[in-house]
Amino acid sequence: TSATKAPAIERQLACSLEDLYRGATKKMKISRDVLDATGKPTNLEEILTIDIKPGWKKGTKVTFPKKGNEKPNIIPSDLVFIIEERSHARFKRDKDDLIYTHRISLVEALTGCTVQLTTLDGRNLTVPVKSVINPTSEEVVKGEGMPITKEPSKKGDLKIRFQIKFPTNLTSDQKSGIQQLLPKP
Amino acid sequence: TSATKAPAIERQLACSLEDLYRGATKKMKISRDVLDATGKPTNLEEILTIDIKPGWKKGTKVTFPKKGNEKPNIIPSDLVFIIEERSHARFKRDKDDLIYTHRISLVEALTGCTVQLTTLDGRNLTVPVKSVINPTSEEVVKGEGMPITKEPSKKGDLKIRFQIKFPTNLTSDQKSGIQQLLPKP
Repeated sequence: TSATKAPAIERQLACSLEDLYRGATKKMKISRDVLDATGKPTNLEEILTIDIKPGWKKGTKVTFPKKGNEKPNIIPSDLVFIIEERSHARFKRDKDDLIYTHRISLVEALTGCTVQLTTLDGRNLTVPVKSVINPTSEEVVKGEGMPITKEPSKKGDLKIRFQIKFPTNLTSDQKSGIQQLLPKP
Repeated sequence: TSATKAPAIERQLACSLEDLYRGATKKMKISRDVLDATGKPTNLEEILTIDIKPGWKKGTKVTFPKKGNEKPNIIPSDLVFIIEERSHARFKRDKDDLIYTHRISLVEALTGCTVQLTTLDGRNLTVPVKSVINPTSEEVVKGEGMPITKEPSKKGDLKIRFQIKFPTNLTSDQKSGIQQLLPKP
């Protein structure tokens, strides 16, 4: 007997950046029709387990074959979960790298600062920056980015960028002090 | 007699931002076949005049009907010139606005500066900036943008942005001086 196959059913699976960093197990409840011995459709609830691997990217697909509704003479459709990445309050992902924007005052930018942050797996990271920070400075911490699924021993980089808060106004004394202190154009 | 029309011929016409600001007249030499009285094709050179209007945008089309090759029983194609905007060394265009990036030192950003620039029609423009400039500051000069073709009395705005050059390193004396002068985080 030749049976046609119903088209795949796609469902989004939203994951936090923490889930994609550490890996996670998601249980998804699905409800579908199956045919009993007499060919009568009965509703069946089922729990599917999805094993999120560290480093998975948005768009990764997990396919459960033939998990659509059963109907006579039709091969049930595949059920496909598509990984979605939720936006994160502190980190942006750029492929295997993580980008962290650190807010500092102009004084800190000029005199040095220490960046302290909590990684996606909850560790405290301390990054001292000795050099002068300008608006396009980027401090790269090797190996503190996202895990790489295919090379579990490797990670991408963490890129720390800076948002420098300038004073909104200065007195004429402050201005002449700065003109004496800093190099002229 | 029913004759089919040959598809339009498109040619790019690169214009400088100055041309699109002031308007310009472009002479384009074309060469095409025309049929003489006996129906024999002869090559003909022709000069077409294109009147660029102030404020034209890239993608503007100028059509010369039936300026393609003449062939028996076919209506010659239209010749279409498509305005292209050459990149400019000093200005970027954003619809009706012009964006100008001014490089200043950190001292100038903090103590004030005067922006001097030459407009696209050759005038000298002086814009004094008294407030403290930060990396996202934008100084808007109303009416110094691109002309608006449909409203010749109006122009867009000029937006001055700033690229602030930070000192690359500072002595510990400079650092402590700055810590005394500028507001703490």
